[in-house]
Amino acid sequence: MDRAHRVMEECARIAQMTEEPGRITRRYLTPPMHAVHSHLRERMESLGMRVNVDAAGNLRGRWEPTKTPRRRILIGSHLDSVPNAGAFDGVLGMAVALEWVLLAKQLNLAVPIEVIGFSEEEGVRYGVPFIGSRAVAGCFDPALLELLDSDGVSLEQTIRHFGLDPTTMDQAATDQDVIGFVEVHIEQGPVLDAERLNVAAVTGIVGQSRGTVAFDGHANHAGTTPMHLRRDALAAAAEWISTVEEHALRAEGMVATVGKIIAEPNAANVIPGAVEVTLDCRHADDAARTSALNALLAQAGEVAGRRRLSMRWNELMDQPSVPMDQGLTALLADAIVEAGLPEKRMTSGAGHDAMIMASRVPSTMLFVRSPGGISHDPAESVLVEDVEASLHVARRFLERLASNVR
Amino acid sequence: MDRAHRVMEECARIAQMTEEPGRITRRYLTPPMHAVHSHLRERMESLGMRVNVDAAGNLRGRWEPTKTPRRRILIGSHLDSVPNAGAFDGVLGMAVALEWVLLAKQLNLAVPIEVIGFSEEEGVRYGVPFIGSRAVAGCFDPALLELLDSDGVSLEQTIRHFGLDPTTMDQAATDQDVIGFVEVHIEQGPVLDAERLNVAAVTGIVGQSRGTVAFDGHANHAGTTPMHLRRDALAAAAEWISTVEEHALRAEGMVATVGKIIAEPNAANVIPGAVEVTLDCRHADDAARTSALNALLAQAGEVAGRRRLSMRWNELMDQPSVPMDQGLTALLADAIVEAGLPEKRMTSGAGHDAMIMASRVPSTMLFVRSPGGISHDPAESVLVEDVEASLHVARRFLERLASNVR
Repeated sequence: MDRAHRVMEECARIAQMTEEPGRITRRYLTPPMHAVHSHLRERMESLGMRVNVDAAGNLRGRWEPTKTPRRRILIGSHLDSVPNAGAFDGVLGMAVALEWVLLAKQLNLAVPIEVIGFSEEEGVRYGVPFIGSRAVAGCFDPALLELLDSDGVSLEQTIRHFGLDPTTMDQAATDQDVIGFVEVHIEQGPVLDAERLNVAAVTGIVGQSRGTVAFDGHANHAGTTPMHLRRDALAAAAEWISTVEEHALRAEGMVATVGKIIAEPNAANVIPGAVEVTLDCRHADDAARTSALNALLAQAGEVAGRRRLSMRWNELMDQPSVPMDQGLTALLADAIVEAGLPEKRMTSGAGHDAMIMASRVPSTMLFVRSPGGISHDPAESVLVEDVEASLHVARRFLERLASNVR
Repeated sequence: MDRAHRVMEECARIAQMTEEPGRITRRYLTPPMHAVHSHLRERMESLGMRVNVDAAGNLRGRWEPTKTPRRRILIGSHLDSVPNAGAFDGVLGMAVALEWVLLAKQLNLAVPIEVIGFSEEEGVRYGVPFIGSRAVAGCFDPALLELLDSDGVSLEQTIRHFGLDPTTMDQAATDQDVIGFVEVHIEQGPVLDAERLNVAAVTGIVGQSRGTVAFDGHANHAGTTPMHLRRDALAAAAEWISTVEEHALRAEGMVATVGKIIAEPNAANVIPGAVEVTLDCRHADDAARTSALNALLAQAGEVAGRRRLSMRWNELMDQPSVPMDQGLTALLADAIVEAGLPEKRMTSGAGHDAMIMASRVPSTMLFVRSPGGISHDPAESVLVEDVEASLHVARRFLERLASNVR
């Protein structure tokens, strides 16, 4: 378990490189990212890796075995964090990646490895996520350079201030002469914890619909308006929220959430005249998601009509699902079984760099249990035994790659 | 219909005496109240009334017939308004009261009348309603004098600035040598409009329970948390809101309203961890109200328990119902029938000065239809035909009093 403890210590060490003392906050290319790079560069170089930072600020290290085959495996995750984050979201994937290199070295496996520490995934500083992996996947839109952060500093200025040259962004895109990309990441959900499993192979990132449903009725005096003469927008919204939950509970593999609600005038003694709620609906199967969304909106319309209210849907997001590469995922699932663990495949309900990388190279993910499903919170944790399990899987996976790679 | 038109014109004239040009806003003893008093004093004096303003700022005018019996009838309503009010809430009762005096004069009825224009009913300036009627009912608490308005001006200062002497507040309390108190007021609800009726006798003011219900669950990622592992506080609140509505729809004479809802963290992609809603529950029968409240809270507890959430009730108000005087109300209902109108008795779902006056003298109310149930809004209106109907009722009522009074 020494190596698992080393991973945990690495996460703890990087957690101290933060914008805010006492809290983990590390936004895109803020000063603590220099410390992270400097520390990781040292570790990578001690492993015999060649290290550079690309124009998007991604830290990239290559390890090449003596007998070098042509195709390498990419492995990595992101180094930035949300404000007041936990210590493992993203960083765990980097700490584990270094152990993958060590494993390959120790076992003398003929698998070249490129470790990538993505500079930005959370979307906190510029409101746009995946800046790092967009660059590596060759889909970085130069228009993003004009984005301003809350201090009015453009993305381009931020890149330059960090000592990088945004005009060389194209060179960050990876060649496609690779086996694929693997991201090890905490699950950020309660599934593995509930099923008492250490790790899972990820089959895809769910597609996502998001929008608002507005119910418009009529505000009236809560004391003088009899029940049968009301057009209560909150009563309508409540009925529909229950419908959403019932539908999602019945639908295999779907999650649907009403996370936000705004009532007007929102006073104890006034019947709500207008209510707006959000709907977030996710499924790995885009057709199933679209059909569920349509059913839910039809029900919202039915509820509103029956109550003499109006209903408006405003779509904010319609993001297709991203399947992980079947071959690479199967290899990972086999490695889980060979490591003596129960085979577990699952979809990811959240977005990850692997979703962006999948547009360029075969990609997959290994989820590590999140105790209590807690993430984006200082209480986020990882069990040493799960890290150890993930490294058993890594060994089997690398061994398979070594025997497959030409 | 001349007199009804005169009432409408009176309301329109007083509507122009406002703190905010273009909007009707007349809070307690603000400058426009001087103009209101001055105008009404002139009208009262031209009717042969003796006028004074008591220490609470209530405008009081007495009319005494030649053959004066001992007991007088009190009639009135309030002269203040909510911000951006309609022209009839309160003021209609004063404009109509002057017609009552004219009627009594013209018919030479032996019924002394005291008209009261209450200085404060809405509770806008000091957060406490019924300041005027509390003084007349002899239940003004001197501690109220220390209340501060939003400009830091105390109630006592406000009274002094208006030219009144707060130390003489006790003298504002009416003697009990009266037949009773009658308040003519717009319904502020849609009942008479829905039933196509002009006016109704009010049998009582409903009792009211108010408080907050807090559901505490667990906030989680909307994408990574499967439906069956959620502890969604909004889904729980929604289920309960539907229960409240269903219960009130079944319960005769009850209204129950969830008017306010606050969800935490209230973000589209996070399962709500905590939701607080208000409950406002009213019924003319206090036992029925209490029993309904207990049933609803038990259901909230059941919903929370089944979903592994906690539930807390925080009571903010438990105000008993106030029945109107049976004899006086019966007299008013008889007058409605004698005026050739359908007899209609109803409860008031809102509080009124008559509720305070009832603690001191027999009190009742006459409701006048509110088209569309609209009130506390510039679109508030009154139909001339309904004012005329109310004056027919007034005539029959005064004639009855004249023949009964000793």
